[in-house]
Amino acid sequence: MAGVAEQAIHRSVEAYRVRDMSICDLVDDGEHAIQRFEREIDQLALDLLAMEHPVANDLRFTLAVIKINADLKRAGKAARSISHRVRDLQTLPVVDLPADIPRMALLATTMVRNALLAFIDADAVLAQSVLSTDDTVDRLNDGAQLALSSLMERQPELVPQALNTMMIAHSLERIAHHSKKVAADVIFWVRGGGLRQHV
Amino acid sequence: MAGVAEQAIHRSVEAYRVRDMSICDLVDDGEHAIQRFEREIDQLALDLLAMEHPVANDLRFTLAVIKINADLKRAGKAARSISHRVRDLQTLPVVDLPADIPRMALLATTMVRNALLAFIDADAVLAQSVLSTDDTVDRLNDGAQLALSSLMERQPELVPQALNTMMIAHSLERIAHHSKKVAADVIFWVRGGGLRQHV
Repeated sequence: MAGVAEQAIHRSVEAYRVRDMSICDLVDDGEHAIQRFEREIDQLALDLLAMEHPVANDLRFTLAVIKINADLKRAGKAARSISHRVRDLQTLPVVDLPADIPRMALLATTMVRNALLAFIDADAVLAQSVLSTDDTVDRLNDGAQLALSSLMERQPELVPQALNTMMIAHSLERIAHHSKKVAADVIFWVRGGGLRQHV
Repeated sequence: MAGVAEQAIHRSVEAYRVRDMSICDLVDDGEHAIQRFEREIDQLALDLLAMEHPVANDLRFTLAVIKINADLKRAGKAARSISHRVRDLQTLPVVDLPADIPRMALLATTMVRNALLAFIDADAVLAQSVLSTDDTVDRLNDGAQLALSSLMERQPELVPQALNTMMIAHSLERIAHHSKKVAADVIFWVRGGGLRQHV
C-alpha cells in the first residue's frame, strides 16, 4: 500500500514537471491497486482484531495501520487530482506563474517518504521531524493561493492555468497533511499515549 | 460528537445564508469541542478493544465508530473552512454568482442528518439512501466550479467572490463525501462484510 501510494504521488509530481500524459495514465491506473489494497488491509486488520485480540503495542500497531491505510488512500486521491490538473494544463499555453510547485512537491514527497520510513523502522524521532515540515508546506500553499488569486484579477486570460495550479498546490498541501497524520500514528504506535494527540 | 459536528455544519451554512459573523464565531469556537471529542472517542474505542475484546457485531461497531469519528472531525473542518470563506465574502460587495450554494447546502446537511440518524437507529436502508445523494452534490459542485471559472475570465473584478464561493462549494462537496463515508460505515456495521466495500 505504501509502495503504490508513494509511487502515485511521485508520478503525479513527475507528470507535472515534464508534462507527460503517459505518466498521468500510470497515476490513474494505480488508483485501482490503491483501492484494492485499502480494502484488503482493512479486512486483515478486522480479522486480526477478531481472532487474535491484540493488546498494548500490538493493538496500537493494528489501529495505527487502519488509520495509516486510510491516509495513504487519501494521499493517493490527491495524486490522482494532480494528474487530472496536469492533463488540463497540457491543453493550455505554458505560462510562468507565482507558485513554487517544485519546492512544495519536493517537501511533500520527502514527508511521505520519511513518514513511511518512520513506520517501517518504528522511528518516532524521524516521524516527529515530519510533523514540523507541514507548517512550511502550509505557508507555501497559502502564499501560492494569494499570489494566484491576485494574478487572476490582473490577467484574467490566465485564469485556467492559475486555477489548475491552485488546485495542484492544494493537493500537495493535502499530501503533506496526510503524511503528517501517518507520522502522528507512528508516534502513537511507538510511544503509546492517546491516538494522534501529537498532531 | 455527532451533535457538535452537525451543529458546526448547520451554523456554517446559516452564516453563509444570512452573512452573520457572530455565527462564524460560534463555528470557530466549536472546533475545540470537536477535537476534544475526537480524542476521547478514539481513546474509549482503544480501551474497549484492549479490555473487552469485542467480536462480530460489537467489533464492527467499534471499528465503525473509529472511522465515523474521523469523518465527523473532517466534516467539522469543512464547516470551519466555510465559515472562514464567509468572513472573506463579508468584506466584499455582494454579487450574484452562478453557483447553487443553497441547494448544495440543503443536500449536504440532509446527508449528514440522515447518516447520523442511520447510525443512531442502525438503519442500513436509510444509510443506503445517503450514498445515492452524493452524486447529485458532486454534479452541482462540478457545475459550480466550471461556471465560476468561466465567470472569472469574463469578469476578473469578481475573482475574490468567485474564488470564495468555489471553496464553499468544494467544502459542501467534502461534507457530503464524509456523510457518505459515515453511511457506508453504518452499512458495514449493520450488515457485515468488508469495511466500506459499499462505497
